[in-house]
Amino acid sequence: MNEPLKYAVFGAGSWATAIVKMLSENLNEIGWYMRSVYIKEHILREQHNPNYLSSVEFHLEQLKLSNDINEMAAWADVLFFVIPSAFIHSELEKITVDISNKTIVSAVKGIVPESGLLLGEHINERYNVPFENIAVLAGPCHAEEVALERLSYLTISSWDAKKAQHIADSLSSDYIKTKISDDVIGIEYGVMLKNIYAIAAGIAHGLGYGDNFQSILMSNAIREMKRYIKRVHKMKRNINNSAYLGDLLVTGYSTFSRNRMFGNMVGKGYTVKSAQMEMSMVAEGYYATKSAYLINENNNNKANTPIIDAVYSILYENKDPKKVFKKLTDKLD
Amino acid sequence: MNEPLKYAVFGAGSWATAIVKMLSENLNEIGWYMRSVYIKEHILREQHNPNYLSSVEFHLEQLKLSNDINEMAAWADVLFFVIPSAFIHSELEKITVDISNKTIVSAVKGIVPESGLLLGEHINERYNVPFENIAVLAGPCHAEEVALERLSYLTISSWDAKKAQHIADSLSSDYIKTKISDDVIGIEYGVMLKNIYAIAAGIAHGLGYGDNFQSILMSNAIREMKRYIKRVHKMKRNINNSAYLGDLLVTGYSTFSRNRMFGNMVGKGYTVKSAQMEMSMVAEGYYATKSAYLINENNNNKANTPIIDAVYSILYENKDPKKVFKKLTDKLD
Repeated sequence: MNEPLKYAVFGAGSWATAIVKMLSENLNEIGWYMRSVYIKEHILREQHNPNYLSSVEFHLEQLKLSNDINEMAAWADVLFFVIPSAFIHSELEKITVDISNKTIVSAVKGIVPESGLLLGEHINERYNVPFENIAVLAGPCHAEEVALERLSYLTISSWDAKKAQHIADSLSSDYIKTKISDDVIGIEYGVMLKNIYAIAAGIAHGLGYGDNFQSILMSNAIREMKRYIKRVHKMKRNINNSAYLGDLLVTGYSTFSRNRMFGNMVGKGYTVKSAQMEMSMVAEGYYATKSAYLINENNNNKANTPIIDAVYSILYENKDPKKVFKKLTDKLD
Repeated sequence: MNEPLKYAVFGAGSWATAIVKMLSENLNEIGWYMRSVYIKEHILREQHNPNYLSSVEFHLEQLKLSNDINEMAAWADVLFFVIPSAFIHSELEKITVDISNKTIVSAVKGIVPESGLLLGEHINERYNVPFENIAVLAGPCHAEEVALERLSYLTISSWDAKKAQHIADSLSSDYIKTKISDDVIGIEYGVMLKNIYAIAAGIAHGLGYGDNFQSILMSNAIREMKRYIKRVHKMKRNINNSAYLGDLLVTGYSTFSRNRMFGNMVGKGYTVKSAQMEMSMVAEGYYATKSAYLINENNNNKANTPIIDAVYSILYENKDPKKVFKKLTDKLD
């Protein structure tokens, strides 16, 4: 029998914690890197993450905890990056060991703000990881429901179907069903775009639009996502598969989504800065909006993206949400 | 100038009341038929429907109220039928005047149980109304939000684009945007099928499935709806347009949907009968489930419809919801 591949999760947020839980159903040893010494010590002492999904109890004998990103990157074969956009760049910068022959799984739900690239592209460009070594993990999946072991479905996409299946098998359990896909780029874009649409849903809610409009927004959003992704990576895909539409819905309809919450505050009249300060964090979709907008602007064959354009003009051009959405409503159908 | 067409609404539920409100933004005179003498008297006295959307105040000078279905059918040129499935057949049976040259708008969200036909088909077959005189009204649209004048979008479909546009114009206002379509059959099926999926969403919720699964269910439902409608009426359509996907979402995500509520009770362990008694009504989707299932069963080229099949086996074959959904989860992705 071959030596089993060593899996490690980088990050200590709710999604990272959920991934460690899922892997712990199948693997004897899971690497878990986190920046915070405090969180590491807490887990060693109390067997749970103090900040996220704290009801999930880990078995310490399964965990290899570390605050040293290079030690962990050197040790593992399969690296799950699950670090928020705001910190991913500075964390990756610390990596000095060669990761070019590792399998990288992007579970970052957005863009690397400093490079404006999707994580897969960023890793490929800066760390010489070939594209066939890169995979993307997509929901629809709230981490909180993984903690409760409520049935959830994941899609793992990779150009290498065998790699995708290996990762899928490592995540599958009684409460996790998985499928694989070869649309690495499309799914990573979808994961990023859905956060913009969640911000749009939040803005609409904050402005007083109701459920009827929310369904119009989501129905237009999935058509816009299809047009957008087709322009950046043309291939045969069913945009209504769960990795695209399902993920859009679970985020766009969630009142817990940080992106939706951020949009809601902006819709209610908070400035972008004050909404971010109030939330003491920057929602992934904030960066995604700028990147998605600029990528499309710079495309010779621009997609028609009224929703992204509306969110961009509110977040980056200081336009009045009420007026922008009034105009947007005429472009939707 | 031509004599303006006379519009009449048949029914006094929440959707009928909302349609009268929308029409009253544009028309000087609206016919409104209701079976109940009490409701008619109440509206004449208090200017609002006592049972539904009672915050909506009507101007009596715009309304032509009647308890006589034949008087109203003879008077009007455009007849909106907005009567629940449970009563539509017995109401239609009362009609003795010739309606074969009238325009009939189906706003019945289901099937005529006695004939197993969509309202458009039923009206065509029994009342000799040619198909080009039949239109279908689709949301996504909760009546309650129309009462609040929250922005909503409607799709009116008819083989006759001019007719569809006339109806659309009569419904449009500051808070109602409309579009027209020529997919009369597809949209009427979509409106019917969404209620089955709302029951499925309710059952899942009642069984304890969470938001992650709900998004999987909706993402699979729209793909199933596409397959189903393609088999009954093949034409080029974008299933993600608001009349199909938007309407599915507003119903499937609504905790106020009677179909979802009914499913929820069944999922929680009520028998079908006791859930119906508890709700003191039969949800549209209950009839739709049987019709949709049988239409598909009798089709030589059957569509793959795991969700409809699951709901059917629970509602009509007395199967255990928990077991049926456990099996269903393996068929979704």
